[in-house]
Amino acid sequence: MRKNLLCAALLLAFAPMLQAQQNAEKPKVKSAKEIVDAAPASAWRTLDPANTLYMDLKAGRVIIELAPGFAPEHVANIKALARGGYWDGLSIYRSQDNFVVQFGDPTEDEKQRKPLSTGAKAKLPAEFERSSAGLAFDALPDSDGWAPQVGFSDGFPAGRDPKSGKTWLAHCYGTLGAGRDVAADSSNGTELYVATGQSPRALDRNITVVGRVVQGMELLSVIPRGPEPMGFYKETERRVPIVSIKLASEVPEAERLPLQLLKTDSVAFKEATEARRNRRDEWYKHPAGHIDLCNVPLPVRPVPKN
Amino acid sequence: MRKNLLCAALLLAFAPMLQAQQNAEKPKVKSAKEIVDAAPASAWRTLDPANTLYMDLKAGRVIIELAPGFAPEHVANIKALARGGYWDGLSIYRSQDNFVVQFGDPTEDEKQRKPLSTGAKAKLPAEFERSSAGLAFDALPDSDGWAPQVGFSDGFPAGRDPKSGKTWLAHCYGTLGAGRDVAADSSNGTELYVATGQSPRALDRNITVVGRVVQGMELLSVIPRGPEPMGFYKETERRVPIVSIKLASEVPEAERLPLQLLKTDSVAFKEATEARRNRRDEWYKHPAGHIDLCNVPLPVRPVPKN
Repeated sequence: MRKNLLCAALLLAFAPMLQAQQNAEKPKVKSAKEIVDAAPASAWRTLDPANTLYMDLKAGRVIIELAPGFAPEHVANIKALARGGYWDGLSIYRSQDNFVVQFGDPTEDEKQRKPLSTGAKAKLPAEFERSSAGLAFDALPDSDGWAPQVGFSDGFPAGRDPKSGKTWLAHCYGTLGAGRDVAADSSNGTELYVATGQSPRALDRNITVVGRVVQGMELLSVIPRGPEPMGFYKETERRVPIVSIKLASEVPEAERLPLQLLKTDSVAFKEATEARRNRRDEWYKHPAGHIDLCNVPLPVRPVPKN
Repeated sequence: MRKNLLCAALLLAFAPMLQAQQNAEKPKVKSAKEIVDAAPASAWRTLDPANTLYMDLKAGRVIIELAPGFAPEHVANIKALARGGYWDGLSIYRSQDNFVVQFGDPTEDEKQRKPLSTGAKAKLPAEFERSSAGLAFDALPDSDGWAPQVGFSDGFPAGRDPKSGKTWLAHCYGTLGAGRDVAADSSNGTELYVATGQSPRALDRNITVVGRVVQGMELLSVIPRGPEPMGFYKETERRVPIVSIKLASEVPEAERLPLQLLKTDSVAFKEATEARRNRRDEWYKHPAGHIDLCNVPLPVRPVPKN
């Protein structure tokens, strides 16, 4: 997300002092932010309204990109549920510190739960990973211990195993997944969670990832935590109401917030990632020469006016 | 932290259902939580009140363990500042999503800032890393790209380089560091930050880590985010007041909250970490066989009554 471009760069007490200093000592190499700001129009892709959810809370709008390339059945179900207004009037009923917020209908008795919207299935297959065949994958120069290869696919952070021939979406900050019970195929897309803490990569390949938040994480990340150990609110009045979750394509055009994402196969994205792997500004004394998959910002901007 | 023991285990919509199921299908191997709960008294160490800070906010108390073994000069200064009530009445003036909260005195003009407490130095050396000589280090079985070796030292997550002979504290969720300007030795411990997002490991060896939050992260992590890109509040009324920051040893015993931490060199800690590297419960279909340094929970409990 755009705000993260500068995120690890500066921990100064006095930002204005820094800015003066930076102007005086012009860096010889471009920062990640400068690279992204200078990226040509062709390096950006516009978010498809048909694959975009608007989650409206009283505090504002959370914008989500769905991942039909990885979880086609779940995404189709989520679209049917959104069309039917399934989540409207339901709530975020769980907030666990350094882990997730979760929303949907927490009613224990299945028969008492909100009926599924027209066209939504009660039962879906697990979609933990998919075949790598024919799938573009831009590998990061760095690997990690969670996957043989990591990189980006369809603009999402992903892991890949050349042996199994499978690719899967990784759990990073902002990842949207479909909560399930013990059975692998027990998610239907009604109960969703968003990762709000240290990337819970142990969940990779154990649960169906259906998308990611591209704007508005700061609305979800500050939701008061529920009690330990799992953050489910005990008092129903603590739940955070969901005004509505709608597909962007079903919202009148005048009410949409069209966004662009930097293409993860663009030169600008690769150069910005390299600029973050090795910080060359004056502040950094020891460039890491490394970046973790979930530390790579995925730049977002409003669609330019012209 | 204790609450995190279960954190990645369960993403179910219906916790009570799960509990019934777990009772029915008794796991053959112990979970991390069961291992920690069964740890002998000798596996726990009691937090030293002389190295513990109580940061009292209106919302409650944040408890911090200082790291004099890694940042002796900064810790000595922070103790002098706490004794002098330096932060009392100051504020958290920055909250950047997926990165840090920062507190102290944000006044731009150095001369107008709150005077340092008696015994506190205006100038300190950078304490980014220390010699590994004579320092116990419990290596994780997994490494990462940020450091040649990772593990725990003095109970803190740490990186180590056998070539340079240095060890340093890692930036994980809850890490407390001393904000600085461009010069490496420009921190004096008055401006502090706590990591509230994806572990910003690129900061390792670039800034002085002075401790970590052991309880109360859920009070810091929900602080409303300031504006992009860096989260400094523009309106002073948005700042979150600090009631006081005191050394636990200077608080009357009746008002203390004595805590114990699981020793990172204990058998229980190693077994619990292994149980998290490879989840053996019914829910996990694909145990990761790996854990990142910053995904390892550091269990905390109140000192037992007996």
